[in-house]
Amino acid sequence: MKTPRANAYRDAWAGELTGARADQPARVAGWVHRRRDHGGLIFIDLRDRSGIVQLTFHPDRAPEAHRLAHALRSEHVLTAVGTVVRRSEENVNPNLPTGEVELLVDELIVHASAETPPFPIDEDGPVDETLRLRHRALDLRRTPLQEALKLRHQVVHTMRNVLTERDFLEIETPVLTRSTPEGARDYLVPARIDPGSFYALPQSPQLFKQLLMIGGYERYYQIARCFRDEDTRADRQPEFTQLDLEMSFVAEDDVIETMESVMGAIFAATDFPVAPPAWPRMSYAEAMLRFGSDRPDTRFGLEISDLGAHFEGTEFKVFAGALAGGGVIRGLNAGARELPRRELDILTELARQHGAKGLVWAFVQEDGTWRSPVAKALSAEEIAAVTGALNGSPGDLLLIVADRASVAAQSLGALRLDLADRFGLVPEGRHDILWIVDFPMFEQDDDGNWNALHHPFTAPTGDLDGDPGKLESRAYDLVLDGSEIGGGSIRINTPEVQQKVLSLLGISADEAQSRFGFLIDAFRYGAPPHGGIAMGVDRIVTLLAGRDSIRDVIAFPKAASGSDPLTGAPAPVDAPQLRELGLRVTAFKAPASA
Amino acid sequence: MKTPRANAYRDAWAGELTGARADQPARVAGWVHRRRDHGGLIFIDLRDRSGIVQLTFHPDRAPEAHRLAHALRSEHVLTAVGTVVRRSEENVNPNLPTGEVELLVDELIVHASAETPPFPIDEDGPVDETLRLRHRALDLRRTPLQEALKLRHQVVHTMRNVLTERDFLEIETPVLTRSTPEGARDYLVPARIDPGSFYALPQSPQLFKQLLMIGGYERYYQIARCFRDEDTRADRQPEFTQLDLEMSFVAEDDVIETMESVMGAIFAATDFPVAPPAWPRMSYAEAMLRFGSDRPDTRFGLEISDLGAHFEGTEFKVFAGALAGGGVIRGLNAGARELPRRELDILTELARQHGAKGLVWAFVQEDGTWRSPVAKALSAEEIAAVTGALNGSPGDLLLIVADRASVAAQSLGALRLDLADRFGLVPEGRHDILWIVDFPMFEQDDDGNWNALHHPFTAPTGDLDGDPGKLESRAYDLVLDGSEIGGGSIRINTPEVQQKVLSLLGISADEAQSRFGFLIDAFRYGAPPHGGIAMGVDRIVTLLAGRDSIRDVIAFPKAASGSDPLTGAPAPVDAPQLRELGLRVTAFKAPASA
Repeated sequence: MKTPRANAYRDAWAGELTGARADQPARVAGWVHRRRDHGGLIFIDLRDRSGIVQLTFHPDRAPEAHRLAHALRSEHVLTAVGTVVRRSEENVNPNLPTGEVELLVDELIVHASAETPPFPIDEDGPVDETLRLRHRALDLRRTPLQEALKLRHQVVHTMRNVLTERDFLEIETPVLTRSTPEGARDYLVPARIDPGSFYALPQSPQLFKQLLMIGGYERYYQIARCFRDEDTRADRQPEFTQLDLEMSFVAEDDVIETMESVMGAIFAATDFPVAPPAWPRMSYAEAMLRFGSDRPDTRFGLEISDLGAHFEGTEFKVFAGALAGGGVIRGLNAGARELPRRELDILTELARQHGAKGLVWAFVQEDGTWRSPVAKALSAEEIAAVTGALNGSPGDLLLIVADRASVAAQSLGALRLDLADRFGLVPEGRHDILWIVDFPMFEQDDDGNWNALHHPFTAPTGDLDGDPGKLESRAYDLVLDGSEIGGGSIRINTPEVQQKVLSLLGISADEAQSRFGFLIDAFRYGAPPHGGIAMGVDRIVTLLAGRDSIRDVIAFPKAASGSDPLTGAPAPVDAPQLRELGLRVTAFKAPASA
Repeated sequence: MKTPRANAYRDAWAGELTGARADQPARVAGWVHRRRDHGGLIFIDLRDRSGIVQLTFHPDRAPEAHRLAHALRSEHVLTAVGTVVRRSEENVNPNLPTGEVELLVDELIVHASAETPPFPIDEDGPVDETLRLRHRALDLRRTPLQEALKLRHQVVHTMRNVLTERDFLEIETPVLTRSTPEGARDYLVPARIDPGSFYALPQSPQLFKQLLMIGGYERYYQIARCFRDEDTRADRQPEFTQLDLEMSFVAEDDVIETMESVMGAIFAATDFPVAPPAWPRMSYAEAMLRFGSDRPDTRFGLEISDLGAHFEGTEFKVFAGALAGGGVIRGLNAGARELPRRELDILTELARQHGAKGLVWAFVQEDGTWRSPVAKALSAEEIAAVTGALNGSPGDLLLIVADRASVAAQSLGALRLDLADRFGLVPEGRHDILWIVDFPMFEQDDDGNWNALHHPFTAPTGDLDGDPGKLESRAYDLVLDGSEIGGGSIRINTPEVQQKVLSLLGISADEAQSRFGFLIDAFRYGAPPHGGIAMGVDRIVTLLAGRDSIRDVIAFPKAASGSDPLTGAPAPVDAPQLRELGLRVTAFKAPASA
């Protein structure tokens, strides 16, 4: 860090007092990290943002400071004035950057005292999360959050610098706006200027950034706060942060190259060991087939194979029926894992949770036959062919699903991740990054309705008047270690295609005009070809920092429930305030669950 | 700008095709800015973000492109492929950076057509603001907004770089939070997870940045979106942007020096002609006395003088009564302005609007006497003394107010600004910046209640148990050309002082705990001395760009009414959505005003 401007509080950072300053006067400020009394001497580890230095109080040298130091407790705030001296050889602390010196204190000024913290600041041990959130200012003093927020600053600053260097303009889009079309629930803001009407908080700046392209800005970015009122999921926040960018007169390669330069710079700046760009691209179809996921974790094997060809004309009714119904038979080799029946039942249950009607398991035996509930139903040729296709060796556990393609992919994909977790299959320190491309434009839900795999502003490829299931989109996702860290697309830029896509999604012309009319209208005045991407900042920092939850890389997160133990938000408001908004509360949460 | 990555759309920026590229092939993309047919030749001014270049279509050289070019209209979007050639001497356009060349087009690709825009893009003339807001994408193409948003990017990027260089960490604070204490009305967000409860949008990150200081971050900044649901005022927006920063172990000089380095770098980067720092500091008392405002415009004279000393024992009852009642007599010399009675009445009315009971005007005559309604009521000595005190020469107009100090200051301050505007007294190109310091901590309203001049977290100086009107605060405002562009303070950092200040403001301990308890509680665990500042980004860019309204430096502003002609926000929502939030609408805006 830069030497601080000298003032009455300090003229140096605690963490930067080294042998180079020996025998010089220094003034430092910060918090009591630890305190030790050794006979007449008092030692204080003083902590500021830069690090820790040892203060030493001699009763003879500075009796008044020594007297004051007696009363110091953990987390008291002080300034210490003294002289930097080298420690004797045997007292050097090699674990501390300042460990070869100490500050012999002549004067001590106590700025604030501290009650005993509800959890220790000077240890990294686990603390109940609600307690940490309630006393967030104290939690923020601890090393994990200090490191995460410094990393976050570095990540975001690198994003800004790379993009500014590339002529991107940072442009702010509104927070108080109209419903946006991502499909999740909007947060609403009652408008006092127009009682009965509401602003909505944006789920993303999607429509505005497209307007900026129509407005000729060509290269836009923003670190944007986004809002989704979703039902509680493990690691979601009501508000989250994305790097949002958009470019005009570009195709997929241009956006991908831009993001590779941004993320490559971040990985380099943070010493995160991932291969430099360009990064591999994998089609959606291949990812779903081989990894059972559109955010494949490629850091370990257990790849999925299609086995359908080996069961043409099979007499095993389950497999024959699946194939006859247009389904697939796919499997993976879980390796030589001698799982008891109970564990196999758990795997079967996991496959079922992902929609599979069942899971076929088989252990390859020394003679090439299978120990499996279905062994008798299959021919020796079928068993041999599958064992061969899955590279099965004696002792290997083979897992097979016969179902609709999407169900087979999803359930085997989930089994893959579960097995990797259970058996620690991800190599320590390995990180994989890749692009997923060639997405289908739509997927059909169980009711036969078409839904956009990305969002309805994504440009389709293929025959818009043909089978919607055959259309692909010009979308791309970036996947790091099995997590989607960003996604984007080339967009539609004509009103005709936009209206066609919206109508395929079952959105009437009236509804389209009412929800997105301002974008469609703008298309009529010369919209350039354009595309962009949005990256999840919280998720990226979480992965870089090696944390489990995005709550550990956000200064003031909500709890998983969406409430804030720190401020008590959300909270009731006064009746007059509601009256001004033209609102009445008609339902309250049951007190029991409040 | 950097050469764009070559793709099918372009390999160069239109605005960067110069003689250096003569005789080389080039591919550019953009919008039809202007179009001219000269006999067989067609000329198109092609516009992209970088600028404009002339495309020339020859019927012989490229008959197909020439044919297509016939159909081009304003704002159509295209790619042109051709060869850069030097124009002949007589055709060079000295007004265009690319004016010495043109692109002889071989191939034309039209990407999108455009309907006739509702207002011209290629002229800067005035357009109805509602029309501009409704068609914001088109308005964004025009030079004034393009320039303003580029300037805004530069301003914000400079802020970030200076602060990052100085070890500030950019840390995000919540948008969905609890009511904050700035005193304006909060925007509320109904919480579906807890019907009947509400989040509030922050009026500033004040409490969170103080928590970050208690959390040991020492140097924090954020370009923060803030929200205030205020009644419509000319140039306010429901959401606005501030540079928010906070520092620990600092005094006033440290924060001021930091902000001088930030703003100094911005002025240097944008060639804004203001003196380099350090900038002058003026006390609140001096500013109110000399300029009648705590954001004095010091670019012109007409300074106010206190005249009370000249009227001790006066027989003029109005003045004698004012002095006897603890009031003041102040005046300014408006200079040699021969105003008719009608104009003097307008000035009097302006003084009344600012609370003055009346305005005394007087013209100094050749013989030193006054032409004034009060001339007869005053002694020759009084007239001579005031004329002397105000440096009056024959023909000068003197304006005098006798009233409470605050009223005299405010009304004479308003007269000063009005006269400067009316007579063009601000020298062209002159810009003044200064700090206002030594503010009173509280001011008393007409009901005798004490209000904080800044906010209740500002540290007071003086005797907290004495007269609240005598307390000063450790606050500082930065004033540019008579506009407050930022303000901040050293904060309170102990629970005792905080509670004392809140109680002087009439906030009970219970209410304090309920509204700010999480901050006061955090103070108990070791709060460092800290202070900071918040700068109005919209206002700063408006002044730098020389615009009249902050709406002209915001990409997607609301109209002055708070509504958005572009998206139609705010808008009604579906009944089921309200039901989920446990709300019912009880009042609607009268349709007539909708």
